[in-house]
Amino acid sequence: MKKTALSTALANVRTSTPLVHCITNYVTVNDCANALLACGGSPIMSDEPKDVADIQTICGGLVLNIGTLNEQTIAGMHVAGKRATELGHPIVLDPVGAGASALRTQTASELLDNYGVAVIRGNMSEMKALAGAAATTRGVDVNPDDAVTDENLAESAAFAKALAAKTGAIVAITGAIDLVADPERAVAIRNGSPIMGKITGTGCMLSCVTAAYAVANPNAQLEAVVAAVAGSGVAGEMALARMQPVDGNASFRTYLIDALYNMNGEALEAVARIEEV
Amino acid sequence: MKKTALSTALANVRTSTPLVHCITNYVTVNDCANALLACGGSPIMSDEPKDVADIQTICGGLVLNIGTLNEQTIAGMHVAGKRATELGHPIVLDPVGAGASALRTQTASELLDNYGVAVIRGNMSEMKALAGAAATTRGVDVNPDDAVTDENLAESAAFAKALAAKTGAIVAITGAIDLVADPERAVAIRNGSPIMGKITGTGCMLSCVTAAYAVANPNAQLEAVVAAVAGSGVAGEMALARMQPVDGNASFRTYLIDALYNMNGEALEAVARIEEV
Amino acid sequence: MKKTALSTALANVRTSTPLVHCITNYVTVNDCANALLACGGSPIMSDEPKDVADIQTICGGLVLNIGTLNEQTIAGMHVAGKRATELGHPIVLDPVGAGASALRTQTASELLDNYGVAVIRGNMSEMKALAGAAATTRGVDVNPDDAVTDENLAESAAFAKALAAKTGAIVAITGAIDLVADPERAVAIRNGSPIMGKITGTGCMLSCVTAAYAVANPNAQLEAVVAAVAGSGVAGEMALARMQPVDGNASFRTYLIDALYNMNGEALEAVARIEEV
Repeated sequence: MKKTALSTALANVRTSTPLVHCITNYVTVNDCANALLACGGSPIMSDEPKDVADIQTICGGLVLNIGTLNEQTIAGMHVAGKRATELGHPIVLDPVGAGASALRTQTASELLDNYGVAVIRGNMSEMKALAGAAATTRGVDVNPDDAVTDENLAESAAFAKALAAKTGAIVAITGAIDLVADPERAVAIRNGSPIMGKITGTGCMLSCVTAAYAVANPNAQLEAVVAAVAGSGVAGEMALARMQPVDGNASFRTYLIDALYNMNGEALEAVARIEEV
Repeated sequence: MKKTALSTALANVRTSTPLVHCITNYVTVNDCANALLACGGSPIMSDEPKDVADIQTICGGLVLNIGTLNEQTIAGMHVAGKRATELGHPIVLDPVGAGASALRTQTASELLDNYGVAVIRGNMSEMKALAGAAATTRGVDVNPDDAVTDENLAESAAFAKALAAKTGAIVAITGAIDLVADPERAVAIRNGSPIMGKITGTGCMLSCVTAAYAVANPNAQLEAVVAAVAGSGVAGEMALARMQPVDGNASFRTYLIDALYNMNGEALEAVARIEEV
Repeated sequence: MKKTALSTALANVRTSTPLVHCITNYVTVNDCANALLACGGSPIMSDEPKDVADIQTICGGLVLNIGTLNEQTIAGMHVAGKRATELGHPIVLDPVGAGASALRTQTASELLDNYGVAVIRGNMSEMKALAGAAATTRGVDVNPDDAVTDENLAESAAFAKALAAKTGAIVAITGAIDLVADPERAVAIRNGSPIMGKITGTGCMLSCVTAAYAVANPNAQLEAVVAAVAGSGVAGEMALARMQPVDGNASFRTYLIDALYNMNGEALEAVARIEEV
């Protein structure tokens, strides 16, 4: 994959301002909205079953994030998922905590099975849970035993491709090394910094930004997802570079969204470390 | 309207610390609470139908924001709206996304028809939807075709006055040019900066701050709303002036609330650009 | 109580990364998650009755915060409270607004009566409401008449010890002077700054951090709670020291969480002002 594909994907978001409907958790929802605005998209949040079909109709895509799922929002996700599928809008599924509870694993699986999910974005423990493999999710964080490493990279890429083939969705497994795969290709991305795990919402924000990229790049979905994931990592590096000794994770959160806001194609191409595996 | 009215309104908020009950969306609720504290008010959030009457009773005013409405919160809005009306407390209605879905338009209209709404604060698309006029809301943002401009200022002011007359509420239409109107007078406010549209919550925060101003200034409601709206714009200019090249929308959000916190009557009078139209 | 107990408690959090399940309000939930990460813990939020038992099972402790309670989350609190009690996990109860509404007072009381609450963390008005004493909570803030002062310190400490004896929980009453008590000992803590009351979430964050401390220090619960409370106050002082003239409460919020992130045992011991009373 050429790096110019990344800046093209970014430019398409900036010029089209994709409107993204998010049904997401109440923990990180504000950061998700500001991250969408920062990357060049426009957010609207709605989870009431009687509201979501109308809202999805005027949007370009949908994010389904189960981070604080409840009966009402699950019902909303089904109505919105059905409507997005009818309209051919890309759906990004973020299976937060799949594997950590029966309800989460079941809900994520049902959404995946019933609607046209375009992208699944999660950590490896969540992905294994979705794939039906043995997984021991540590709350909403990846189990260290599941992490993608240089040692298991080929095996992890094969898993990602197989999950993409099985589900029909692009699979984005994020962590120290990110993997983005469709059934034929897998791309490893080596950007970001460990402090990204010290704020809540890094993954949730990325899922929303990924939806904006998917909406704005209908003919280059894999490139779009790689651009969103690499962009998040590059933003993490830019944010880290701003940190002063008195700064902590709260300042980092601000800097991360700021970096998404100031990101341009040149910086993205220059700093992104992507490799087909 | 004299500019001294603005600093008087501000001073009344600072000295009385109005307690404002907010039923608002979960996207920007934290910013709303911090903005209320910044301006000199005190927030309390409660949306459970069994809780809201007690809470409204100890407060001075009520905000009804339908940004992430659901069946439970709509029920809570009705109970709280009824109680606030009984007590004569000012209600600020923020019809987020009216026109974007049938449920939003209907809910906003029902709240407006049934309770003593003192102020409606929204963008022009939402206001047109409430007025029953043709409107094409773009999600939660104004449709560019609806924006108040120098060209349509007289017509827009007439619309605002007519809506105020029809509803009995002060009408605050915010955008690049803000309009605040009662049935007899309309005031145009030319403060703020475009980056205010690049964060989520600018409008929601203003609605909450407006409630604090309305509570603290019972005998000068139009002046109170103009002061709140102009204050938001002036804060936006102060926040913009702090921006460094690496800063983005997340830093701007912090600076905006900081500016509300540090606002004083002198700065407000000096920078506010208000004009009766 | 020796100050070295504080740094020991802090070190135990940093080395064990306690996973804390929070059922908390949607106003400050993001700050709660980032504060937990900052102090060295790991958050997971879940309030759906069908989800919370599984989630609590994989966690070490539970926070029950009634700041925006509703029927669904109250039901979730009961399921989670029962499960945590079965597992012997510490529960921190934050009775936000107890005394301000019948539902809040009743819910807090029922949670306290039915589950193994290890710590109650609130302001004096909320504590008086829980104790069944006459209290006039001012929304979610303490009534000035209820505040702990040098003049009523002995009486307040006796109240805290008696409430601890009655409930079996450690009682943490926070304000300008904080009091932490079990039935035998009461510790006064004189850290913090008044601007902590000008942001939303200071108390909510502390309750979550307290849970992390309680989980990580099973054999020194009083010391753990004192360390968490003193740490919050010390962080408030560190944050205040960073404030520039243009900064307001939003910057303070960022600095406060940053300070939790950068806190170490030496700073905590050096700045903490604790005294058995």
